[in-house]
Amino acid sequence: MASLFSRIVAGEIPSHKVAEDDKHYAFLDINPVAKGHTLVIPKREVDYIFDLSDQELADLQIFAKKVAKALRAAIPCEKVGQCVIGLEVRHAHIHLVPMNQESDMYFNKEHLKLSQDELAEIASEIRDHFE
Amino acid sequence: MASLFSRIVAGEIPSHKVAEDDKHYAFLDINPVAKGHTLVIPKREVDYIFDLSDQELADLQIFAKKVAKALRAAIPCEKVGQCVIGLEVRHAHIHLVPMNQESDMYFNKEHLKLSQDELAEIASEIRDHFE
Repeated sequence: MASLFSRIVAGEIPSHKVAEDDKHYAFLDINPVAKGHTLVIPKREVDYIFDLSDQELADLQIFAKKVAKALRAAIPCEKVGQCVIGLEVRHAHIHLVPMNQESDMYFNKEHLKLSQDELAEIASEIRDHFE
Repeated sequence: MASLFSRIVAGEIPSHKVAEDDKHYAFLDINPVAKGHTLVIPKREVDYIFDLSDQELADLQIFAKKVAKALRAAIPCEKVGQCVIGLEVRHAHIHLVPMNQESDMYFNKEHLKLSQDELAEIASEIRDHFE
């Protein structure tokens, strides 16, 4: 069965899309640790990120770099942090998080509650900056 | 002035080295969140990881993948997680952490206390698996 994320890429499950190319997709985490928290995935369904080929891993990182640039332009922050955990959804994904302090990357803190309208607005701002 | 990590690469400050090539260096975090917690850095001193060129970013990830493979061979775990925060030491670094549950990646939990001998033993085991 297709992963949750493959179903999002296919449009079977709605998402707040931030960026896309032929091999990658980026969308807002609906349970964000910070405003603009984005998930970046390869469209090819692989569970463990280090099972991607060297070329796929490199392409994914370069795509994530472009997303991070748009993210930082839309949501001013000191840096965009990244984290790969991958024990919940079995489709490799990079968390990109606008950061101003280390605690912005604490995944066990209370997450933000944002409405669908707020998420749509944030996604739109990031998309506008994606080149 | 050279960053803490550049001084480690230069051997001015000791480290428990795990792997090295001409452009990258990997060594144990002395304040680990889990056994085998490793830092992977580009030797070129760049603060923000996304300021690396696309090629440098790709090469760093491919090197990190090789380190993660050695790490998982030395310290059996479900996956090796990765995280880039980068607000403390201003030299880009990837945290690689052997993970069995998400909480292994919580950077705000109590860190392990390992002796220099224990760290040396762990580094040696990982080095033995690095190809």
